[in-house]
Amino acid sequence: MISDIYTKYTAFEQEELLEKIRISTSEKRFKHVLAVQETAIILAKRFGGDVGKASIAGLVHDYVKERLDEELLRVVYENNLDKEIIAFGNNIWHGVAGTILIEEELGVVDAEILQAVSVHTTGSDNMALLDKILYVADFIEPNRNFPGVEKARELVKVNLDKTVKYKTKHTLLRLVENEAKIYPKTINTYNKYVAN
Amino acid sequence: MISDIYTKYTAFEQEELLEKIRISTSEKRFKHVLAVQETAIILAKRFGGDVGKASIAGLVHDYVKERLDEELLRVVYENNLDKEIIAFGNNIWHGVAGTILIEEELGVVDAEILQAVSVHTTGSDNMALLDKILYVADFIEPNRNFPGVEKARELVKVNLDKTVKYKTKHTLLRLVENEAKIYPKTINTYNKYVAN
Repeated sequence: MISDIYTKYTAFEQEELLEKIRISTSEKRFKHVLAVQETAIILAKRFGGDVGKASIAGLVHDYVKERLDEELLRVVYENNLDKEIIAFGNNIWHGVAGTILIEEELGVVDAEILQAVSVHTTGSDNMALLDKILYVADFIEPNRNFPGVEKARELVKVNLDKTVKYKTKHTLLRLVENEAKIYPKTINTYNKYVAN
Repeated sequence: MISDIYTKYTAFEQEELLEKIRISTSEKRFKHVLAVQETAIILAKRFGGDVGKASIAGLVHDYVKERLDEELLRVVYENNLDKEIIAFGNNIWHGVAGTILIEEELGVVDAEILQAVSVHTTGSDNMALLDKILYVADFIEPNRNFPGVEKARELVKVNLDKTVKYKTKHTLLRLVENEAKIYPKTINTYNKYVAN
């Protein structure tokens, strides 16, 4: 039964978990996380990943994205997370601090799922298959609509690593064009998966 | 006398120093370093920098750029320089390892000149006036010819920091477009002088 993955990887039944996530997110974001879940399942099947873990990772990855800055910063301080992240804003905090709150509040303890959530925005220089699946699913889920997304959707039909490369390069170019802060870990991802 | 700066900041008279640099560089690069020297002098005068230090920094900044990789790597190992730089190639090595050889072989001991040479390719998140002068002079000297250089030459007529920003953003975009490795220090420079 597909619903077994909920009690296997979280402290809740499917319906309860969905409700907890629904009340923690805007309507738009809830639609996004459901779409990332669906996309992650498709990618896990396609590339031989763990379908259950991909499904849960997709569902919980943005669980804390709408929390107040103060709460995410409290998590950073109380858990002695890398203080370097403080300068980088919610976009970076919600993955790293998210893993703490997903464990505390949703009962997710699987290390692979937590790692995938932790690096879903930045990637890392040592991405596991599940990390790549979530990183890419978040980029191409059907609600995404930006110049380049169709190219990514074509790439991922045949090659996950090339899509990791594409997302990383695309994201970095957009950050620099917009003069937005770049988290150093993003550069590690770039040097590993994009640069020659 | 302008020639005093040579014996003040190096172990050589002007003519000897120029000859040492000339035989260490291709004809094209020797022309480049003379042009960086001239440009650095102009910028130092314009922005209230030390003209003598700017002149010497411009002249010596690429002194080791044509050394063999093995020699630059030997310098990295023997001087316990940050091993992280090893993956990043001559473009990064010649500044950092350069400071060691410029001190050993040319007798340059002034800390401000050595620092400016050390960061002339990457910048840093804490650039002194002399660092900025060399960083920008290297980018805009009259022999440079690439899309965007005229914009930089216009900017530097009025604002050095905006030109530091322009070079950093321009360089990073070019690196990403070319899928070239990015040294993490470059991102520190970007986060300090480009990102909001």
